[in-house]
Amino acid sequence: MKLTDIYLHLRSDIVKIENELESHIDAEHPDLKRASSHLLKAGGKRIRPVFVLLSAQFGNYDLDQIKQVAIPLELIHMASLVHDDVIDDAELRRGKRTIKSKWDNRVAMYTGDYIFAKAIEIASRSNKQGVHDVLSKAMVDMCIGEIEQIRDQFNLDQSLRTYLRRIKRKTALLISVSCDLGARVANVADKERVALKWYGYYVGMAFQITDDILDFVGTEKQLGKPAGSDLIQGNITLPAIYAMEQDNWIKHHVTSYMQDPTGESPIKEVVNRIKHSDAIDAANKLSNDYITKALDCLEPLEDIRAKQALYDIAIYIRDRNY
Amino acid sequence: MKLTDIYLHLRSDIVKIENELESHIDAEHPDLKRASSHLLKAGGKRIRPVFVLLSAQFGNYDLDQIKQVAIPLELIHMASLVHDDVIDDAELRRGKRTIKSKWDNRVAMYTGDYIFAKAIEIASRSNKQGVHDVLSKAMVDMCIGEIEQIRDQFNLDQSLRTYLRRIKRKTALLISVSCDLGARVANVADKERVALKWYGYYVGMAFQITDDILDFVGTEKQLGKPAGSDLIQGNITLPAIYAMEQDNWIKHHVTSYMQDPTGESPIKEVVNRIKHSDAIDAANKLSNDYITKALDCLEPLEDIRAKQALYDIAIYIRDRNY
Repeated sequence: MKLTDIYLHLRSDIVKIENELESHIDAEHPDLKRASSHLLKAGGKRIRPVFVLLSAQFGNYDLDQIKQVAIPLELIHMASLVHDDVIDDAELRRGKRTIKSKWDNRVAMYTGDYIFAKAIEIASRSNKQGVHDVLSKAMVDMCIGEIEQIRDQFNLDQSLRTYLRRIKRKTALLISVSCDLGARVANVADKERVALKWYGYYVGMAFQITDDILDFVGTEKQLGKPAGSDLIQGNITLPAIYAMEQDNWIKHHVTSYMQDPTGESPIKEVVNRIKHSDAIDAANKLSNDYITKALDCLEPLEDIRAKQALYDIAIYIRDRNY
Repeated sequence: MKLTDIYLHLRSDIVKIENELESHIDAEHPDLKRASSHLLKAGGKRIRPVFVLLSAQFGNYDLDQIKQVAIPLELIHMASLVHDDVIDDAELRRGKRTIKSKWDNRVAMYTGDYIFAKAIEIASRSNKQGVHDVLSKAMVDMCIGEIEQIRDQFNLDQSLRTYLRRIKRKTALLISVSCDLGARVANVADKERVALKWYGYYVGMAFQITDDILDFVGTEKQLGKPAGSDLIQGNITLPAIYAMEQDNWIKHHVTSYMQDPTGESPIKEVVNRIKHSDAIDAANKLSNDYITKALDCLEPLEDIRAKQALYDIAIYIRDRNY
């Protein structure tokens, strides 16, 4: 099943949100337009608006109300991608730094700021209780997550706990907030809203863990970058954490690579050994546990089409292999 | 007269805001704390909170309400400084790029994002009409101003009009919004609020023009950087625009420098000739015109201490020489 088939019945609303996203970024400035157009063209799954729409279906579904949170949520996600790009331009590649021209980084940084501000401006039109609060708290936490990721890069002193906290802030939170705000703008009762919020959290955790697994087991063609890129860039994700616990050879070589990424280190071989280790199964198991918890959250909700869609999305995330 | 003497009667409230600024940035994360502490220690004049406080004195002055806008405004200003720093690290210096380590730029970028988000979070506590809206529109416009400045750098196709639009977005707007929001949280009547808002706009324009003049006429010691740094970095400000209109030698050499900043260009001599040209007087005249307009805005306001303080700040900005 394709992901988009799961929420086919919302297609026309998603298209409306898509068009409005474009109009917000398009209009005001030629430089901005150029700098952000690749993001819009790249498309993406617009998964955050989808969670907003689906969650809103448990209450008074009103697209105008929904837009006021769905568009900011997607814009915030896009802005964070723009800022990640600034960083990636300055990324270590096999121990060497490639730095794009100052011009591009500057435009990218302020374009990211602009999209953030636009998101806030649109959200400020909503008069629903808690919208601004929840959204701004999520932004604060996302930033802390990014800063934690920088701190943790090339840092061996990491545990499952620090990893989970990082991916919570980096990914799970915004998905959880998407469900929460979708429920809020539709005046969904608190009990159901909280269930949707936790569903989003668990699904988000599973999504990021799967992403981190795929970075090892995916092909270069599927990933658009070499397998093991996370580790090579100094990001120690769940498969690496598990593998280092189980295999001293891996632990030794990851350690020496993190201490000196420019030195002689069989990092490709390390990636390959992690890929074929039990760590992948263990990581998959944790992801599956999160999906199970996500499905449990759906239990008490009304049996509507949106519930089935949320169920199917969770299964899709569990089973996705690229 | 020292600037701080003008609003001495607000000192205890400014200290309270200062302390709260610190507590907001201090608490949550050690890396954030480190990255932003130099900003707080550097202090700054906290001129935006001062405008909020003074404007609020024309209505129901309530420090708790005021904080909800004064702190976000100062945080937004601080965040923009942090992001400017990221850029300045990658700045052209005499045609060569000095690039600080990736680490610092990354932390600075996400620290800026974090401070922006914090600002929004605090503002979201305010329930006053228009606060979120005005604040988020100001942020959007500030970002466009930054992007315009990037576009205009090393670009000779500039006029007085593009310059004024740029400094409006870069500087005048946030000061204008400080006055506007100070009035809003104190329920100042619309007519007075709009007067304060325009006062802030005119004062902000004059402030930036004076800043741009001082970049030419100030000493290296006063400025903390060589005179003419703006021009050397490719930013064509008002004195340069005027001087190029009046002096073909200046126009020729500015043009060739902008086209090839790494080439042989007597840019120091150009800076010196601008400094001693009529362009400085002409720029000062425009700044003074803005101050006159600012003072006119104050006319209809009630004769309270805050009115005198706003008057004195405008005169201070007109006469400041470093």
